[in-house]
Amino acid sequence: MNKFEEKTIRSKQIFTGNIVHLQVDDVKLPNGKEAKREIIKHPGAVGIIPITKDNKIVLVEQFRKPLEKSILEIPAGKLEPGEDPETTAIRELEEETGYTTEELSFVTSFYSSPGFANELMYIYITDQLEPLDESVDGDEDEFIEIVELSLEEAKQYVEAERIHDAKTNYAILYLHALGLS
Amino acid sequence: MNKFEEKTIRSKQIFTGNIVHLQVDDVKLPNGKEAKREIIKHPGAVGIIPITKDNKIVLVEQFRKPLEKSILEIPAGKLEPGEDPETTAIRELEEETGYTTEELSFVTSFYSSPGFANELMYIYITDQLEPLDESVDGDEDEFIEIVELSLEEAKQYVEAERIHDAKTNYAILYLHALGLS
Repeated sequence: MNKFEEKTIRSKQIFTGNIVHLQVDDVKLPNGKEAKREIIKHPGAVGIIPITKDNKIVLVEQFRKPLEKSILEIPAGKLEPGEDPETTAIRELEEETGYTTEELSFVTSFYSSPGFANELMYIYITDQLEPLDESVDGDEDEFIEIVELSLEEAKQYVEAERIHDAKTNYAILYLHALGLS
Repeated sequence: MNKFEEKTIRSKQIFTGNIVHLQVDDVKLPNGKEAKREIIKHPGAVGIIPITKDNKIVLVEQFRKPLEKSILEIPAGKLEPGEDPETTAIRELEEETGYTTEELSFVTSFYSSPGFANELMYIYITDQLEPLDESVDGDEDEFIEIVELSLEEAKQYVEAERIHDAKTNYAILYLHALGLS
């Protein structure tokens, strides 16, 4: 779908980072005028909703520098170039939680913030978790703590804004709609 | 909460745009090592879930340059500096849909993508829509089309990825959980 398409007149690369790239495009609007678009390019990401055998949600607490605070999120990570999202999902689940799974169900996908970024987030769920035989050495410079919450506890964390990001708020609402108890 | 806090050693401003700012921070990790954080600063935004008297969801279709396609989203917009999110919500509802309301309920808020951006999204809902007496002149360089969908239609649009962003996918799931029919 390209209704109201904005044709690129020129594109200027501003920043090439490890995670994000920033470019500013001059575009032609449908009325012929020109405008600037600030665009963040991102490789895409996955989030996994891991449910234990006793119906707890496995979350990870980590410090998020853009927010200058730590929040609790579903396990998540960026896609490597060309990587299948399911592969990313399994890797991040293992690295961040010490669980693995052979059964992953696709829930949905969405753009995090389509006004300025092309990050596409894939969400998966599994209630078939198996502890890994030995602890996986994740990224040694990644500091996270695992928390397992009931759905009721997770809802309280949403109220308290300790759970406070799109993918995790979506996950909690999804589990509520599913009737997890 | 500041578990695993990453102290800023230095912060370098890379880009100051109309919508986003980009900075790269050197931080000290809990293990004493240093790392770089690429951070997008954003003023924050609101999304409004407008429900008509016959239980249709009012969505706007617009071209999103970062995605190079148009998608259907709940009405939304950026906060002006110091602006109360409810004020933003009413303004964007009026500008984008031609409806206004005196009853707005807070649904939730979430960070769109806390790994690299500080954008906080506030979500409101209203089923008390009143058509504006005269059409509001929105941003003349904003090209949008209003679409009103039943919840069932909206779910099909999610399946087809014509609805495909965090706030709108959240909104459709929220209405499903609410039992809108």
